[in-house]
Amino acid sequence: MTRERSPLTPESSVPTLADVARRANVSTATVSRCLNSPDQVIERTRNRVMDAVNELGYAPNFSARALAARHTNTIGAVIPTMDNAIFARGIQAFQEELGRHGFTLLVASSSYKEALEEEQIRTLAARGADGLLLIGYHRNPALHEFLRARSVPALVAWAYEVDSDIPAIGFSNRNAMADLARLVFEKGHRDIGMISADTKGNDRARDRLAGVRLAAREAAIDVDRMPVIETTYSIESGMQAFRQIMGWTPRPTAVFCGNDVLAIGALKAAKEMGLSVPEDVSITGFDDIEIASLAEPALTTVHVPHREMGRRAAGMLIDMVTKRTVPESVELQTDIRLRRSLGPPKT
Amino acid sequence: MTRERSPLTPESSVPTLADVARRANVSTATVSRCLNSPDQVIERTRNRVMDAVNELGYAPNFSARALAARHTNTIGAVIPTMDNAIFARGIQAFQEELGRHGFTLLVASSSYKEALEEEQIRTLAARGADGLLLIGYHRNPALHEFLRARSVPALVAWAYEVDSDIPAIGFSNRNAMADLARLVFEKGHRDIGMISADTKGNDRARDRLAGVRLAAREAAIDVDRMPVIETTYSIESGMQAFRQIMGWTPRPTAVFCGNDVLAIGALKAAKEMGLSVPEDVSITGFDDIEIASLAEPALTTVHVPHREMGRRAAGMLIDMVTKRTVPESVELQTDIRLRRSLGPPKT
Repeated sequence: MTRERSPLTPESSVPTLADVARRANVSTATVSRCLNSPDQVIERTRNRVMDAVNELGYAPNFSARALAARHTNTIGAVIPTMDNAIFARGIQAFQEELGRHGFTLLVASSSYKEALEEEQIRTLAARGADGLLLIGYHRNPALHEFLRARSVPALVAWAYEVDSDIPAIGFSNRNAMADLARLVFEKGHRDIGMISADTKGNDRARDRLAGVRLAAREAAIDVDRMPVIETTYSIESGMQAFRQIMGWTPRPTAVFCGNDVLAIGALKAAKEMGLSVPEDVSITGFDDIEIASLAEPALTTVHVPHREMGRRAAGMLIDMVTKRTVPESVELQTDIRLRRSLGPPKT
Repeated sequence: MTRERSPLTPESSVPTLADVARRANVSTATVSRCLNSPDQVIERTRNRVMDAVNELGYAPNFSARALAARHTNTIGAVIPTMDNAIFARGIQAFQEELGRHGFTLLVASSSYKEALEEEQIRTLAARGADGLLLIGYHRNPALHEFLRARSVPALVAWAYEVDSDIPAIGFSNRNAMADLARLVFEKGHRDIGMISADTKGNDRARDRLAGVRLAAREAAIDVDRMPVIETTYSIESGMQAFRQIMGWTPRPTAVFCGNDVLAIGALKAAKEMGLSVPEDVSITGFDDIEIASLAEPALTTVHVPHREMGRRAAGMLIDMVTKRTVPESVELQTDIRLRRSLGPPKT
């Protein structure tokens, strides 16, 4: 059974500020004040105005206000996924800082699909976002042109490339992973493998793989013989990839994972295969999400300052929106959390 | 150092469909076709039109299109938090199903704050969302009135109350938790405690606590003496609350946690206190997020069909938006995942 709803409000009856003023029996200036500086209006008047706002379904009108001022106090973010903790902590800090400055955050998630990200960027621009946070650099350059033409500033996060002129806050995924790999090689590992996210269209994944290869070459390891399995970011696919990579000859004594989610999958698969970590095989991650330190054994990984990145990204983007300036890009430092999942190879 | 950006595009120069048509040297109908049914346009023309779209920064105009048709193919969701996995899986499935039907999802997160949720609901309505997904029933009733007045349908998820006339898809948090509690009492536990989220403003938390009390009364346990600690949803606060609750006399032999995140914190605190789970104390969760089965020991919890809920919520909301009907509310079944963290009390 379905009940009928009342028919659509026709276009002409979308309520205006004047309608609210009329219903509440106040001036339009008073309605504005109620919405923008409620502290300056006595409570009885404010209640009457807010009742009228609710009864009429009035909202500060995006057709008039947004187009005129191009200022909606809404910031958009397009992240690759909400379904695991990779971006959660940074985005939460981003939102908290935006909130402190009176901005509302709307988030879209692209499932790591380039075409979907493009659609979401256009949607957020069309919905009047004052500025956008985007993850990584890899996308159709026409999108940055599109945003410039609409005067919607965009800030890249989770990546940093010294020679890009797109403003960014992030870190060098390549250098961070190379630092971790150097530590693994110092422990004596020569037979290694890597479980990576799909490197096509994901510059962070590509750079992390490049970091392992860089450190391997420094250690005079033949990187062309290193098994690399590209998969999607999930515990399940980490498990599958780990089983596959352990069938390689010579069998890896250390497996790099492109992020902690894959590494948790690898740990789980190792347990099911009856392998001890790190005695039989070392496993490393990237990100230092909460589960990394809770895992058994706890995971050696690259710690990313997610909350700092989110907080500072908000400040940068607010400046871009309100002061119309282009900030210097910011490179953050990562560091290595050495935990039990990394040890020397069996001799 | 900051570089100056070009001045704001003045209102009058926001590009129109006609501007795109002129620049691409095609009819406005062709531009429409490129945007709405690109398959029907030959590639050369399509490329020329899309170049013009990008150069001008054109986006299907919300002032004209959205207000006229009240149809933006954008759905909004306001969830209490992005910073842990509680809502991630359901929202991901919600988005995937919306995407299959050509809708884009924008998500706002309210940090469990009622005033922030209200602001975000108004923002999403103002940004032209066709419909909204909201979590639970607890909010200012004026908001539902506001949305009705604007003809923006809203669907409640993650909760189900048989006597509410607001459309919903969810489950009975009270019955689900009562089922789990009955199992705990069957194991012989009499001295219990509960770590809950703040029950003020969170109907799911309140109902889960009510479920434990219901089953306790059935088992003739004095519920007034049961220690209940209300805290925020995080591993850290779960740890703190567990330490506190284990100081209670008589010491609980089983601790119910309002969700898996709190339970993971409790497990971690138990380990630090040198307590064996379940030999010294049993611990239970709620949600069955991924970490529940990975924990050591694995967590006994209530399994919520998150993906099914998200997928079906999308179908219901699309019907509400496109067919203007009000659906029957849907009650989903939860079930108990009995894992190692629950055992009989020490005798």
